[in-house]
Amino acid sequence: MLELEVTIPAVESGSYKIKISSGYLDSLWPQIQADFNRSNKFVVTDENVVSAGHLQKLLGQRDIPTFVISPAGETSKNINTAASIIEAMEKAYLGRDTLVVALGGGTVGDIAGFAAAVFKRGVGVVQIPTTTVAQADSAIGGKTGVDSKLSKNAFGAFRHPTAVYIDAATLTTLDDREFRAGLVESVKHALIADEEYFVFLENNLDAILERKLDVLEKTAYFNCKIKGGVVAADPTEQNKRRMLNYGHTVGHSVEQASGFALLHGEAVAIGIIAAGLIEFELGMAESDRLEKIRKIFKKLGVPVTLPPNLAKDTLINTIKRDKKAINKWPRFILIDKIGQVHCEDGQWAVEVEKELVEKVLDKLCTEKK
Amino acid sequence: MLELEVTIPAVESGSYKIKISSGYLDSLWPQIQADFNRSNKFVVTDENVVSAGHLQKLLGQRDIPTFVISPAGETSKNINTAASIIEAMEKAYLGRDTLVVALGGGTVGDIAGFAAAVFKRGVGVVQIPTTTVAQADSAIGGKTGVDSKLSKNAFGAFRHPTAVYIDAATLTTLDDREFRAGLVESVKHALIADEEYFVFLENNLDAILERKLDVLEKTAYFNCKIKGGVVAADPTEQNKRRMLNYGHTVGHSVEQASGFALLHGEAVAIGIIAAGLIEFELGMAESDRLEKIRKIFKKLGVPVTLPPNLAKDTLINTIKRDKKAINKWPRFILIDKIGQVHCEDGQWAVEVEKELVEKVLDKLCTEKK
Repeated sequence: MLELEVTIPAVESGSYKIKISSGYLDSLWPQIQADFNRSNKFVVTDENVVSAGHLQKLLGQRDIPTFVISPAGETSKNINTAASIIEAMEKAYLGRDTLVVALGGGTVGDIAGFAAAVFKRGVGVVQIPTTTVAQADSAIGGKTGVDSKLSKNAFGAFRHPTAVYIDAATLTTLDDREFRAGLVESVKHALIADEEYFVFLENNLDAILERKLDVLEKTAYFNCKIKGGVVAADPTEQNKRRMLNYGHTVGHSVEQASGFALLHGEAVAIGIIAAGLIEFELGMAESDRLEKIRKIFKKLGVPVTLPPNLAKDTLINTIKRDKKAINKWPRFILIDKIGQVHCEDGQWAVEVEKELVEKVLDKLCTEKK
Repeated sequence: MLELEVTIPAVESGSYKIKISSGYLDSLWPQIQADFNRSNKFVVTDENVVSAGHLQKLLGQRDIPTFVISPAGETSKNINTAASIIEAMEKAYLGRDTLVVALGGGTVGDIAGFAAAVFKRGVGVVQIPTTTVAQADSAIGGKTGVDSKLSKNAFGAFRHPTAVYIDAATLTTLDDREFRAGLVESVKHALIADEEYFVFLENNLDAILERKLDVLEKTAYFNCKIKGGVVAADPTEQNKRRMLNYGHTVGHSVEQASGFALLHGEAVAIGIIAAGLIEFELGMAESDRLEKIRKIFKKLGVPVTLPPNLAKDTLINTIKRDKKAINKWPRFILIDKIGQVHCEDGQWAVEVEKELVEKVLDKLCTEKK
């Protein structure tokens, strides 16, 4: 037996910048050109973003190759859309010196990020998130992906963005339901990492819902700081990063089982309540904690119980296919108190018996709204 | 303007093992189980490998979920096949603790490696290459990918294998044309990195063509050492790794323009002759160098001129879409002498004018066989 060892060299640490302000979308392109002047740019966006006027603001009269995802939303988040984007880049004769610019919400960012990650074995992506969920969550952290017929983000890659530009003013044109649902990720960040932020959200929810730009900027800053910190500690989700999945195990399955009738944030709200009920059953919750969370969610107008038409078996089956599943059952993130994730023997995701999850799902169906 | 910086932590160096021997496929599975006992295994192979009896040898009576690519070969190397593999993994309820085992030639390894790289944002892959091209080249180095309608490996990822097991005896059942074509990558390795290896190939070509196992093992060892060394120096092809593309810029375009009627190695042989002609035109070649290479290729029975039905314009257009293109024209790898790549101002890929490439393509059409 001949034997050889191939060395994979170390990779040095790096960083990327997140810039947060309001009303600078129409002056952003020259800055991107200046910051990344050696790359050919390719813009990915969707028809909602075009209708909202954001693409026009970003590009003005500039002639930049652009792919507009249609229809907008999760139904387009599949491998065919990613393949179409890649073919459009090829048709523009783009090479490895390409920088993809993702302008839009979570699905645009995820699809564009995935296309960039696999185009000719990987090119850079700049994220310009235009929704509450994207500004709080999906644009930061380098998770990219598209869904398969069976599960969310079945295809994906970890690939950090080259830069993130947040213009809080883009939120002023956002559909109200989407605006509110996206704020659930902000609540999640507060729950897992920062009690002070939770209190900030309780106190400023009216100003946020009125879309006051200074409060929205501050919210974005809290979110990016929390998420950026967790991601820096564990970029490829070996352990600590899993805490960002708080509420997402049940949330993802609810989102998918609803056929995406529920928005991501709405489904995650249900998932966070499910996590709260699991914590309660396990004796981990202070008595009023779940009530505080429900109160915020009700003010946001997001659901806190399961829609009546979702079959429990379907949910359980989808949970089994969760990306984080080990031996066909995922671990769960739970919190000890607001701002503090439960950690057991150094693990941030813990075992929860299937029977208990089933019991909680039953409770989530029958609970009063 | 609020500003944040997200740190991307450093990644430590790592390594993977390549084991080379003959006739150990039927005792390999217990070793893989022992080496990677915490992973669920999923095998990807193709119908040719099944027909050759290799899958049966590897798995015996074991019940391991397996995806058989059909038809075998480059026509299946597309995003739909990758998507089917991922769906099969999902249907088997596999999670991030999955280890993909790729048993087969270059296309199996590339497709399986790509599916592993993007399945739930990335799982490991063990390569068991069963062809000359895969044992010499594609199984080592972490390049994975599938083709789009427009170009080769338009979708791809850099992802190092978890381990590589080479059983030279698998080559004894290989189709003669494929066996010979795959040896072109060995010639390429010698040309770019090791004159001693080139002389070894000249002296042992008969024994290789007779498929003598000890010589095949030694050939595999030379190949893995050369390729492993280059990859370790530059895993993501920033510069030095480009030397592995010797003969591949024209080669890839010929392969694609032939509609894959030509095998990869056959097309690369033409590409290597094209590189030799470019070197000659630029005054870089010793007078007898190209003759030595042609002699080996003729003995291998691979083409040294362009098939008459390939239009030059098509080739030029495909070259423009090359992954390595910068401003829509790729750089070329050239050699100063056998075993030594030409390096200019620290660059291993150099500019060659389109007109010169066109002239060489004309010459490649009209030259006597």
